Amino acid sequence: MNKIIKNIWIVMVAIWFVACDSEPDSTHYPNVILTGEAVKAIRAEQAHLPLLKQSIDGLQKNVELEMMNGIEVPIPKDPAGGYTHLRHKQNYMNMYGAGVLWQVTGEARFANYVRDMLLAYAELYPTLEVHPVKASYAPGRLFWQQLNEAVWLVYVSQAYDCIAGILTAEQKELIENELLVPYADFLSVENPKVFNRVHNHGVWAAAAVGMTGFAIDNEELVNRAFNGVETGPKEEVGAGFLVQLTQLFSPDGYYTEGPYYQRYAMLPYLLFAQAIDNNRPEMKIFEYRDNILQKAALTTLQLTNTNGQFFPINDALKSMSYMSTSLVHAVDFVYGLDESQKELLSIARQQGEVIICEAGLKVARAIANGEARLFKWESKEFRDGPEGKQGAFGVLRSNSGKNSQTVTMKYASQGMGHGHFDRLTISFYDQGKEILQDYGAARYVNVEYKHGGRYLPENKTWARQTIAHNTLVVDKDSQSEGNVKTASSHHSEPWVFDASKEDVKVMSAKENKAYEGVNMHRTIALLNLPEVSEDAIILDLYRVESEAQHKYHLPYYYKGQMMHTNVDYKAETTALQAMGKNDGYQHLWQTAEGLMTEGTNRFVWLNEDRFYTLTTEAQTNDKLLLTRIGAGDPEFSLRNEPAVIFERDKTASTLFASAIEAHGNKHPVTELVSGLKGHVAEIKTLINNSEYTLVQLAFANESKVVFAICNNSNDQSASHQLMANGQEYNWTGVCQLFK
Amino acid sequence: MNKIIKNIWIVMVAIWFVACDSEPDSTHYPNVILTGEAVKAIRAEQAHLPLLKQSIDGLQKNVELEMMNGIEVPIPKDPAGGYTHLRHKQNYMNMYGAGVLWQVTGEARFANYVRDMLLAYAELYPTLEVHPVKASYAPGRLFWQQLNEAVWLVYVSQAYDCIAGILTAEQKELIENELLVPYADFLSVENPKVFNRVHNHGVWAAAAVGMTGFAIDNEELVNRAFNGVETGPKEEVGAGFLVQLTQLFSPDGYYTEGPYYQRYAMLPYLLFAQAIDNNRPEMKIFEYRDNILQKAALTTLQLTNTNGQFFPINDALKSMSYMSTSLVHAVDFVYGLDESQKELLSIARQQGEVIICEAGLKVARAIANGEARLFKWESKEFRDGPEGKQGAFGVLRSNSGKNSQTVTMKYASQGMGHGHFDRLTISFYDQGKEILQDYGAARYVNVEYKHGGRYLPENKTWARQTIAHNTLVVDKDSQSEGNVKTASSHHSEPWVFDASKEDVKVMSAKENKAYEGVNMHRTIALLNLPEVSEDAIILDLYRVESEAQHKYHLPYYYKGQMMHTNVDYKAETTALQAMGKNDGYQHLWQTAEGLMTEGTNRFVWLNEDRFYTLTTEAQTNDKLLLTRIGAGDPEFSLRNEPAVIFERDKTASTLFASAIEAHGNKHPVTELVSGLKGHVAEIKTLINNSEYTLVQLAFANESKVVFAICNNSNDQSASHQLMANGQEYNWTGVCQLFK
Repeated sequence: MNKIIKNIWIVMVAIWFVACDSEPDSTHYPNVILTGEAVKAIRAEQAHLPLLKQSIDGLQKNVELEMMNGIEVPIPKDPAGGYTHLRHKQNYMNMYGAGVLWQVTGEARFANYVRDMLLAYAELYPTLEVHPVKASYAPGRLFWQQLNEAVWLVYVSQAYDCIAGILTAEQKELIENELLVPYADFLSVENPKVFNRVHNHGVWAAAAVGMTGFAIDNEELVNRAFNGVETGPKEEVGAGFLVQLTQLFSPDGYYTEGPYYQRYAMLPYLLFAQAIDNNRPEMKIFEYRDNILQKAALTTLQLTNTNGQFFPINDALKSMSYMSTSLVHAVDFVYGLDESQKELLSIARQQGEVIICEAGLKVARAIANGEARLFKWESKEFRDGPEGKQGAFGVLRSNSGKNSQTVTMKYASQGMGHGHFDRLTISFYDQGKEILQDYGAARYVNVEYKHGGRYLPENKTWARQTIAHNTLVVDKDSQSEGNVKTASSHHSEPWVFDASKEDVKVMSAKENKAYEGVNMHRTIALLNLPEVSEDAIILDLYRVESEAQHKYHLPYYYKGQMMHTNVDYKAETTALQAMGKNDGYQHLWQTAEGLMTEGTNRFVWLNEDRFYTLTTEAQTNDKLLLTRIGAGDPEFSLRNEPAVIFERDKTASTLFASAIEAHGNKHPVTELVSGLKGHVAEIKTLINNSEYTLVQLAFANESKVVFAICNNSNDQSASHQLMANGQEYNWTGVCQLFK
Repeated sequence: MNKIIKNIWIVMVAIWFVACDSEPDSTHYPNVILTGEAVKAIRAEQAHLPLLKQSIDGLQKNVELEMMNGIEVPIPKDPAGGYTHLRHKQNYMNMYGAGVLWQVTGEARFANYVRDMLLAYAELYPTLEVHPVKASYAPGRLFWQQLNEAVWLVYVSQAYDCIAGILTAEQKELIENELLVPYADFLSVENPKVFNRVHNHGVWAAAAVGMTGFAIDNEELVNRAFNGVETGPKEEVGAGFLVQLTQLFSPDGYYTEGPYYQRYAMLPYLLFAQAIDNNRPEMKIFEYRDNILQKAALTTLQLTNTNGQFFPINDALKSMSYMSTSLVHAVDFVYGLDESQKELLSIARQQGEVIICEAGLKVARAIANGEARLFKWESKEFRDGPEGKQGAFGVLRSNSGKNSQTVTMKYASQGMGHGHFDRLTISFYDQGKEILQDYGAARYVNVEYKHGGRYLPENKTWARQTIAHNTLVVDKDSQSEGNVKTASSHHSEPWVFDASKEDVKVMSAKENKAYEGVNMHRTIALLNLPEVSEDAIILDLYRVESEAQHKYHLPYYYKGQMMHTNVDYKAETTALQAMGKNDGYQHLWQTAEGLMTEGTNRFVWLNEDRFYTLTTEAQTNDKLLLTRIGAGDPEFSLRNEPAVIFERDKTASTLFASAIEAHGNKHPVTELVSGLKGHVAEIKTLINNSEYTLVQLAFANESKVVFAICNNSNDQSASHQLMANGQEYNWTGVCQLFK
């Protein structure tokens, strides 16, 4: 079949080259995402709006390149990353692009290309059974899983919408009856379990079916998208798009699977919402649930380091950023709704493109008009759970600019199947760069060599395990025994979040269920002390209450090259051993061990051009372990990165008190080094009990601060008074910095 | 003393704030580097020349910041990287900057700052004995080694030259007699061995003494710089600046220690030459030895990857690039001599600054005038040795632009004490990025934590050893038994270098003395075959002739994450062992081993967003070893990076035939993957004997090429005819690509 189509294509190209441009039929403007109004305005204004022009030109260049190859609609065969998979993916992008270009340029070759490819699909689709790669719980037909199947239709429904005006009645009937309707049926009534599922797969399916409904004016499809299908099991909370909007985002717009999946899930939400707004404006979909979609979009933007990459908690690939198409939609659609949000324009400018629709037009206009304002990254607690009561993800930043220090802490719910066993884990960023890292997922998306691009076995055995994170491991076991169901039944408890003060911003949370009989309480205080350091100093207090004695491991996955420690350690120089057999320890080589001295211990590393010091308070018999990831990795799929682990054995209740700081500079070219040494000279616990924790930091410039937190009440109006080290400490509220 | 000076300083600042700007004394313009003509032109034109303005503003900002701290001239105490070391380093930069600023702005505060600091030094210097850190063969007074001591004077002589006009006769006498002359004496007559040494330390000393001679109009100092000093031992070739110009550069302007040190050595050469040109124009110093300095400057620029970083052969830090001050001088001075070299302007624009002198003015003018042209990286052989007869360093590039593939091969002389035992090693770059790496030096310059910033013990035990490089190791021993003296007594022999053809560029060299009884011959052919691949395909033929049997190891230090190999290997998952006890093997963990199958074997890795495939032809019983650097590293100073090593045991003469290619793309945000598989389907030796080597590559598109090289004659006019695989091959010259 493909060969025939290719030949037809060559003939048609020849004909089109002599054809003239025409105007899209004005009685048939699109209405799903692009609208007639927008088409007219885009045609009139594009020459004067550089970002819009650039977006159209970019799209045109890509589509034209693809059109040169002719139309190919292969019989589905390959898994993710394989040829037929990528071809069908590229095809929907091409049809979408060509559809939009037909509207914007009026060049018939674009419309004809979409028409012919749709006709080829209409010929192929009825012949297909379920996809031959049987690797998904919900296999598709064109693709190995229904997720990709739905994405295809989200784009193709828009393409059809754009070019429907050029079709003969016969062609319309053929494409709708042989392709679009059966395709939508497959995603909905034929697979009710996925369709009704409250999950990003369900959102994609709803959007695909609903947008197709708008594109072909089929009320039934739209209704399915709104309400789910009757034929299948519904979840307790119901089914359909409105339920998806209610259940999957917290009131802060936080998506429980985490930012990497939030980014992906945003796209069908936004597209379908925009389609609803264009076709059922009376629903005021964007105002639904106190502007939940707008909140979700802004939250996604905030859940990034200052290079724009998403915080890689849970299963996440680290290179993903707000440059993704999803976030181009998010920025444009939110700005389209509320043109006062000028900060979004600086992101749009970085993205270098806009969506070719009314919202994108508004963005391009405002940027051309010089209205862009700098984006401000916020310190904020993002509550998790449909009602915001299932813990949270906290972000503290030293300032709102690109060069800030940022700490994140995860004290949320499990995040469903993609969640990691990493309650109370932290990450640290300096000037956008990861310094204390979250490993992210073990996966090479779309790389066929690596298990077909799917999650690797090491994602389960390593990436999701507790020891793979910057959080406490008790007795070398993972939290909740590594059981998703158990972990999903509870969540961490926020204790205090206060980013209102200039000199100390605090986030603090408790986790009492991850380990039986062990109550954990971690507090991060970000100190801005310009008299001590230009950079923020992070105080990290990890408190444990337990009646029984345990072995504790607290790892810090530092990125960079170790420079120094004052701990007297012995490195393994001729042989290495894996650290264990399970719970992730089988993936760690132990590279050194040292007995720490009671009191202040220091560990220094270099990351590119800056130094970092982790200063920690040790007790007698504490050990410093140095490790490197890479054991138990028969296919060399893991990144071989280091960690320092503090070990405290045979201990019941205790406190790990540490300070983290960025300092100095090593210039790559002048080779000049400044600020080699950190500012924290001593870290000392003054009090630690079930009521209070007071920790003192002494600095190289001989100044001191004491940070105090109340452990048994988080009443912000309560007053506290106590003596420590011969001094009286009085404060109101949960915590206080004494300078 | 410091406190008193600080107090004086505060008073003086108060006075200067009410002082008005004045003009430099026109009877006393500087004459060393900056000249009266240039000062007048810079003052007149700077407002209209953005790059010049930016350079002056940048300098002023830095100097003003430093001036805020007052003058501090501490008693020398610390090693490299320590406080007093860095202070004295910063002081000479500040004096130089303030001196230039006085000339350019006419603000007296700058001149006074230099004057007062010079007076402080004139007070300190006579009190100093030899530096307390005894770690150099040639200790200084202000610094631990005379090298830094000389650099100080190179800058300070310019500073003095700039402000001499404001000094009273008494101050002049004091500074010249108590500081400059004794300082120059210390570097010359008091340390004749270093001063007369033909070595970059000698060049710095000559420049320092000679420039001081010009600055204070002291003929004797200038003569010492030209001729060396009589009181000490001279090398066979003589001493002094002209000898340095003759001996240290090859006729191609290649500096035998390699580009990292060439960059450093260029600065005193260029500065002193410019000073000579300003004061003794009749010497035509820049024309000396067929424009050797200009050639050396251009060669330094060419010895970079397309990110501008120097090829890190021998002891070299990898971040060093043509952004360094030295190369700013090189670009400006060469352009100043020859304004037709418009390609230099694009580098100057990237550097973002010019030297504030006549040459820098010319560069800034031309850039403002839009004259910059793109810099073109060349394929070139850089001959080594004073007469160009001690081997060479070869560079092949697929094109002259930033996105080229580049291969380098080292077949030069040893490169003195900083040389590595790495004859015939190659490196491979794609789009500026290191893909097959040279480890460079084991050193963290100026980082006191790491052995005071000096070369680490691992530099000798690892970085210089043969196994640390992408070249053949025989019987697990380093070349020349790791003996510098032995290695320095011979060099590799260039066989052929031909970059004149579009489809195949070749470099080939022999090394017969590194291992007794083993003759090695490596040929790199860079194939541009647009019908096969957008990217160059590198053919790597490593031929060995030996009567005795040996164990051969051929390592490739690939950068990135392993994706795939078709070799059936077994990874070490629970324990690792170091691979040996000496010659660098003690620093390698063996992570896997596999028996290769006879014929074509493939190894694929991912570096950021591109894939790389190394396809190699194996013989029966060949092994693939996977390794990671990091064993025998008690202080964690090494970078833990991987290699694949091909092992062929119990073999006499043989050929390792491999192909290296870059392919495809993995997009960080769209996550789309293209070109996952390389183009080389098969690699096959057709003939390999002492006369000829013919190797065939078969590609995925079913085309084939055969590369032929003659091994026993490199006569470019000789004709060859032979049969292989049932086909006749005829060619003239050393090698040929048959398509």
